[in-house]
Amino acid sequence: MPVGPVNGFEQPRFENSSTFARLPRIDEVQDEASIVVMGVPFDSGVSYRPGARFGPSAIRQGSKLLRPYHPPLDVEPFNVVQVADAGDVTVNPFNIIETLENVERAADDHLSRGRRIITLGGDHTVALPLLRAVARRYGPVALVHFDSHLDTWDTYFGAPYTHGTPFRRAFEEGLLATDSCAHVGTHGPLYARSDLEEDRGFGFAVIGAERFTDVAPAAIGDEIRRRVGERPVYVSVDIDVLDPAYAPGTGTPEAGGISSRELLLVLRALRGVNLVGGDVVEVAPAYDHAEITSIAAAHVAYEMIALLATASH
Amino acid sequence: MPVGPVNGFEQPRFENSSTFARLPRIDEVQDEASIVVMGVPFDSGVSYRPGARFGPSAIRQGSKLLRPYHPPLDVEPFNVVQVADAGDVTVNPFNIIETLENVERAADDHLSRGRRIITLGGDHTVALPLLRAVARRYGPVALVHFDSHLDTWDTYFGAPYTHGTPFRRAFEEGLLATDSCAHVGTHGPLYARSDLEEDRGFGFAVIGAERFTDVAPAAIGDEIRRRVGERPVYVSVDIDVLDPAYAPGTGTPEAGGISSRELLLVLRALRGVNLVGGDVVEVAPAYDHAEITSIAAAHVAYEMIALLATASH
Amino acid sequence: MPVGPVNGFEQPRFENSSTFARLPRIDEVQDEASIVVMGVPFDSGVSYRPGARFGPSAIRQGSKLLRPYHPPLDVEPFNVVQVADAGDVTVNPFNIIETLENVERAADDHLSRGRRIITLGGDHTVALPLLRAVARRYGPVALVHFDSHLDTWDTYFGAPYTHGTPFRRAFEEGLLATDSCAHVGTHGPLYARSDLEEDRGFGFAVIGAERFTDVAPAAIGDEIRRRVGERPVYVSVDIDVLDPAYAPGTGTPEAGGISSRELLLVLRALRGVNLVGGDVVEVAPAYDHAEITSIAAAHVAYEMIALLATASH
Amino acid sequence: MPVGPVNGFEQPRFENSSTFARLPRIDEVQDEASIVVMGVPFDSGVSYRPGARFGPSAIRQGSKLLRPYHPPLDVEPFNVVQVADAGDVTVNPFNIIETLENVERAADDHLSRGRRIITLGGDHTVALPLLRAVARRYGPVALVHFDSHLDTWDTYFGAPYTHGTPFRRAFEEGLLATDSCAHVGTHGPLYARSDLEEDRGFGFAVIGAERFTDVAPAAIGDEIRRRVGERPVYVSVDIDVLDPAYAPGTGTPEAGGISSRELLLVLRALRGVNLVGGDVVEVAPAYDHAEITSIAAAHVAYEMIALLATASH
Amino acid sequence: MPVGPVNGFEQPRFENSSTFARLPRIDEVQDEASIVVMGVPFDSGVSYRPGARFGPSAIRQGSKLLRPYHPPLDVEPFNVVQVADAGDVTVNPFNIIETLENVERAADDHLSRGRRIITLGGDHTVALPLLRAVARRYGPVALVHFDSHLDTWDTYFGAPYTHGTPFRRAFEEGLLATDSCAHVGTHGPLYARSDLEEDRGFGFAVIGAERFTDVAPAAIGDEIRRRVGERPVYVSVDIDVLDPAYAPGTGTPEAGGISSRELLLVLRALRGVNLVGGDVVEVAPAYDHAEITSIAAAHVAYEMIALLATASH
Amino acid sequence: MPVGPVNGFEQPRFENSSTFARLPRIDEVQDEASIVVMGVPFDSGVSYRPGARFGPSAIRQGSKLLRPYHPPLDVEPFNVVQVADAGDVTVNPFNIIETLENVERAADDHLSRGRRIITLGGDHTVALPLLRAVARRYGPVALVHFDSHLDTWDTYFGAPYTHGTPFRRAFEEGLLATDSCAHVGTHGPLYARSDLEEDRGFGFAVIGAERFTDVAPAAIGDEIRRRVGERPVYVSVDIDVLDPAYAPGTGTPEAGGISSRELLLVLRALRGVNLVGGDVVEVAPAYDHAEITSIAAAHVAYEMIALLATASH
Repeated sequence: MPVGPVNGFEQPRFENSSTFARLPRIDEVQDEASIVVMGVPFDSGVSYRPGARFGPSAIRQGSKLLRPYHPPLDVEPFNVVQVADAGDVTVNPFNIIETLENVERAADDHLSRGRRIITLGGDHTVALPLLRAVARRYGPVALVHFDSHLDTWDTYFGAPYTHGTPFRRAFEEGLLATDSCAHVGTHGPLYARSDLEEDRGFGFAVIGAERFTDVAPAAIGDEIRRRVGERPVYVSVDIDVLDPAYAPGTGTPEAGGISSRELLLVLRALRGVNLVGGDVVEVAPAYDHAEITSIAAAHVAYEMIALLATASH
Repeated sequence: MPVGPVNGFEQPRFENSSTFARLPRIDEVQDEASIVVMGVPFDSGVSYRPGARFGPSAIRQGSKLLRPYHPPLDVEPFNVVQVADAGDVTVNPFNIIETLENVERAADDHLSRGRRIITLGGDHTVALPLLRAVARRYGPVALVHFDSHLDTWDTYFGAPYTHGTPFRRAFEEGLLATDSCAHVGTHGPLYARSDLEEDRGFGFAVIGAERFTDVAPAAIGDEIRRRVGERPVYVSVDIDVLDPAYAPGTGTPEAGGISSRELLLVLRALRGVNLVGGDVVEVAPAYDHAEITSIAAAHVAYEMIALLATASH
Repeated sequence: MPVGPVNGFEQPRFENSSTFARLPRIDEVQDEASIVVMGVPFDSGVSYRPGARFGPSAIRQGSKLLRPYHPPLDVEPFNVVQVADAGDVTVNPFNIIETLENVERAADDHLSRGRRIITLGGDHTVALPLLRAVARRYGPVALVHFDSHLDTWDTYFGAPYTHGTPFRRAFEEGLLATDSCAHVGTHGPLYARSDLEEDRGFGFAVIGAERFTDVAPAAIGDEIRRRVGERPVYVSVDIDVLDPAYAPGTGTPEAGGISSRELLLVLRALRGVNLVGGDVVEVAPAYDHAEITSIAAAHVAYEMIALLATASH
Repeated sequence: MPVGPVNGFEQPRFENSSTFARLPRIDEVQDEASIVVMGVPFDSGVSYRPGARFGPSAIRQGSKLLRPYHPPLDVEPFNVVQVADAGDVTVNPFNIIETLENVERAADDHLSRGRRIITLGGDHTVALPLLRAVARRYGPVALVHFDSHLDTWDTYFGAPYTHGTPFRRAFEEGLLATDSCAHVGTHGPLYARSDLEEDRGFGFAVIGAERFTDVAPAAIGDEIRRRVGERPVYVSVDIDVLDPAYAPGTGTPEAGGISSRELLLVLRALRGVNLVGGDVVEVAPAYDHAEITSIAAAHVAYEMIALLATASH
Repeated sequence: MPVGPVNGFEQPRFENSSTFARLPRIDEVQDEASIVVMGVPFDSGVSYRPGARFGPSAIRQGSKLLRPYHPPLDVEPFNVVQVADAGDVTVNPFNIIETLENVERAADDHLSRGRRIITLGGDHTVALPLLRAVARRYGPVALVHFDSHLDTWDTYFGAPYTHGTPFRRAFEEGLLATDSCAHVGTHGPLYARSDLEEDRGFGFAVIGAERFTDVAPAAIGDEIRRRVGERPVYVSVDIDVLDPAYAPGTGTPEAGGISSRELLLVLRALRGVNLVGGDVVEVAPAYDHAEITSIAAAHVAYEMIALLATASH
Repeated sequence: MPVGPVNGFEQPRFENSSTFARLPRIDEVQDEASIVVMGVPFDSGVSYRPGARFGPSAIRQGSKLLRPYHPPLDVEPFNVVQVADAGDVTVNPFNIIETLENVERAADDHLSRGRRIITLGGDHTVALPLLRAVARRYGPVALVHFDSHLDTWDTYFGAPYTHGTPFRRAFEEGLLATDSCAHVGTHGPLYARSDLEEDRGFGFAVIGAERFTDVAPAAIGDEIRRRVGERPVYVSVDIDVLDPAYAPGTGTPEAGGISSRELLLVLRALRGVNLVGGDVVEVAPAYDHAEITSIAAAHVAYEMIALLATASH
């Protein structure tokens, strides 16, 4: 029987524990862990508002109210698999390359022990080493990318590794399953018409935020499920896919996004895909209010854990 | 002719009056009042973020822009019935039992004078004495309960009277009309699969927040109307039924809730039910921003008053 | 080739420029400008929370992330027409009349040079002189008015020129095309049943916020397009048409509004109308959080510019 | 025996009452009141950040923790004299002249009944009609003016009655006792060297904020006492005399001000002067945090009441 | 050699660790610990603004920048003695008595192992069980009490154990060394003249905040040192001893307090007293801004640890 | 006659201009400028809270109320010398070296035209290239360094150029005048006893914040003046020298700092030194409230300009 979260009926949620969902630390359950929640407190890849380095601790704080039973998926994830908080990867705010290596090494280590990883960012740069590790193990993945932006730009100010460029790098490195990836929830203007054309060349479909006005999240989930098929799926959620009303605490907010409910419902609708990892990134708590952004991000991570737990039934 | 609010064309809304909707105080209209707005500034039943003790004054502040005509229901409620602000019940933050008794006594007193009560919380614990008073007068009620949570848990840390347990107590005390109650807008995880099973045993249907994605609020209102039938109806609105984007100022926020518009529309769709009382609770202003939570709560209370006024035509 | 915004790949967006969308100042492109963005930092017409005098600078700050390509309309507006920031009209916070004259004169001047104007408010009072100037040049306009309120009241405290009265004045002055105007997104209570009756007499249709629950924004856009026909159209957006969750930074917020996505989609659906000018008003940054209101307003202004650019193809 | 505040040991301070210090309303004690606290929710005289119209209600909220015994002056003011809350003067945000007249009339009325007035602003414009009323009754007053600024400028944008000009008007109208007035706590730059020269001509001494570095508040109080002698004294406190750290919630903050402790101590040191009235103005709650500015202002008002009570022993 | 904090040159301070000053957890050093930092996340004894239940985690967050060398005392406390974070005592927000027992038991346990305890509150109620445990071990203590208030009132609403009453209970239980205790930094009004008289009877001297205007903190420290002599000293710091500018994040703020620098200097001047324990309480993070209150509290706790380390040299 | 700021009596301060103190842009006065205000929106050298990249625009916003006459120095600086806003240096957030080069080049350019530079940071890393440029022109400088920290550490995570290391680099590069430099206002703990020893070796005296308790700012100014003598002086102000109450908006706040008044007075007391340049850095607006930090920083910059203007009389 997995070690679950601290019991909220016995110990108040404002007490002590600072792990995700008040779960055990990895050192407390070690070899038993099948799913780890891992933080990457890094934001030196950010082009506008920084602060996502405080994202992991904020999301953990926002996760304190999470409870063990997920009604729509009818699963008690923490009872089904051992989930643990693996703490934060050590980063170097002055060295992007070194940090990416640290993240990749940490991910490799977890994956080599048969664990699946849900990562709490940090800025979107950190998705690249995570994809490297995942693709090394599972082969090229179908990336399901929730974001306001494409993040397939080539470079910012000459820098190749930034929060706006991870997926072009991933494509170039052969980490993505051609014709299986999708951007979901994009909104806001782009730099040029060519952005979309190039992006298509990397294998992405685009399901813009405006689609959610006419199509139910469940149907969008179906659409994604059909696109990814049996391939290993990596889900990357930039919290700015949400409208700024739902996620003020982020670095490059764009008006016109989707709602938290829409995001959670479409994630839930991915039940059955071969999920091999996921992240939720770009939570910048200095711009948050009353933890609403980090609570949303915590629910996103919980949703992914529930998907993994459902699969492991 | 009822005494209405201070005229907003003559006296600026940022002036003076601190009653709900700038209505007269109860002592100014005394025997004429048919509907009273009553505050219960109590939050010692809270399990996470406290602060709802400042809810009544915040909601009154948030009500200053309310105007006398309700277009969708085509009613000028303050002209149809005398509405008055009854002030706050005296509470004891160090004594839950004493406070519940005070609330019950105050409610009994108003009901005995033929008044209907709209209560401004305070945390959800205060719904229990209100239900006691209402059921004493009208018999077991059909509870229409808007909330992120079920609030039918048994106990927190051994305490029977908390903001997570009022409706289990109400069931045990026979205050609820079996098979007529409903939770509306629930979202977020639960403690265990058994939570829902036990809850069903108390007579509740569950209309989760995700239902609002596929079904219009008016249709959900119809569904509720059918369920409650001719029974006396008590509407209890925990403001955390709203997504945290709409209600950051609350104690146990859960991502994925409904919107203010959805909430107001479903309340409006209850026109015609036999409404005998209502409350809006769990507004914790220290976590609010720019009064958005208390404005939403003020509109909820106004909607209930309009429903009562419509019925009394 | 128009001078575009400062390139965001070469110069970080947190640098220097404080013009709208980092566009050139009017004095840098002078005779080339066909569209100007003009600020009116005035809020002495406000009846509740003041602060919209800081709106223009906040919206410019919120516009820093705007990029040059608009995917849904498939237009790069800043490449199609020369857009420039005309700075702020000089206002007198102690003299409404003088300010309205200044605005009218500034607008006349731009219009006489063949420019179209997108105005950043300021409170809604400033729409009156803008309508005067536009109507002088183009004849009575079909006003498409996004707002929580009607703004056709007669007077506040005896004052004829306030943020609640501009469109009654506009009607009285013959600036509006009879039977072509519309309020869109209205919500919240009114002063009296007669408000709506009088309003109808001024030529307005009302498409309340609750309509967006059942009807897609594109269909609402069609409805508006049919109503305005070939007439010159002026679009005035009071940011409080948005629910307070999306626009906390405003003066008279009402719960139950529309979302940013709904607003942007309905604006986008106006493609093809004869747009002759527009404004976005009532952004009060002191009540904003993390710039979410001013970002929404910046997107609204960008949407109007894209509409104008599409028309000028 | 005067009617005192609601007892804080019996009724929690977060309950009900919204009067200053939870004192009785004027209509509850009517003819008994010797000191009234009166609000003027007006800010249309402001040149920079507006919002002081919400000052009176914020200061009242900030006064809820005030208790009845003042240790350093060893007085229980509310037991010595009947103090009451006279509510707000009706203002017209669109008409400065009308508002000034309303304030003057209200002040005249209270003074004619033998009451002393402590006014809660509102912006500093409101000091002018208060001085008119006071001077009409007591003759020219020695004005002790705590402020970052001089407020003796001639005009802003041509307007004679603004928050930067009341004391030049007062001088011109003969309301000030020549050679007895003083500015205390001034800091920050001025428009021109001539500002100080002109100001000296109006009868003011200047005790700049930097003086508090070398001289104890009690000694500064002595200096002021000597200057005002036996003359009737009016104390006007612009909350921006405090450093922005102590009073962020104000309209024209200047770094380098005095502390709350320094302000309270120098007020206290005025014991024995012939205080005939006072005000505390320029609290703009939208810029406040956790009520620190309005709490400071509430203590300032309380200090003045204690001075008056001490005198009436 | 004690295990010190995580090295801030090697691991960024925004990473991982959530213990006080990034020190080891008690279970990591167990028997080696001589000083423990212990949290009590309890605020059910609060009479006004609640929220101190989140104090311990906020103070730990605010302690992340603390470094190991204390220049004025010339001590590297974490190298001199083993300091560890003992986590939080389990509290029951619905049961004051049970919580006080839990705190007392936890304190007894640490003291019985020869550890000194620095407690992070929580509201001031928690000082009572701490004094019980300390007095049981060391005999009646000289309490040095920094606070805006006296906290020797008898009861609130009939409740004996609240944040306003711990030291009257302590006196009644014989926990205090007669004629050796002192209140330091008191400011703001009291309920009645008798408050001070009764308080004197409990053995307290009062060094009001106004004293800091004329007397240097070092001299005040001398005065306290003389008063406490050789007796065991317990230092209890209610963060509201600071002016609200320095500590907005607290429950019952009073204008006119001392500064953080004054507080730290007077603590530092206690070098040489026989310090047997201490606490810092009443940090309510929901009212804090940018962690300034919790940073101040973290420095207070660090100052106490440095005093203990200095003594153990 | 120099071109001064926009006249605040004619054009409201909330209008248009976004230059420092509403001064002309450098391109408007070009060759006439003798003093330039230059922004460096860079924060990639930060070890804890990022966000100082938004510092320059925030300080400019906070400077809008600055007026042209400085009473204590009796100088109208903008009338004495031509001061202009040189805008921001282009930075690369992903490349510290490139940014430092850009800053150095920009500074060289201004200095070669005989201009003195007041720089608005950005984080403290930017002081290094400024010192390089200044020392190249004037020889090694006496650095007067206001800061909570020493900033003479060797490296963070192996990086030589960070906000904690500029002055060790400056020493190593021979930019500092031996035995003439001083840290002023330091407070908070250090990493090790050796920090101070090494620091002394670089030529610094330390005037800790606690000194301000006993010594008047003017006397501290005298002490500094004696130390720097006739040497060229560079003043670098890290805004975290202020207590967090005065400067919440910064990256590494430490309790116990000096006040804004103390800082301004000691700067003012430097009148007569040979000031060759200065900066104010580490303003992180995301953590600020109501602009209090950026207003303080604006006053600091203004104080330096006044010193330069006084010297050029």
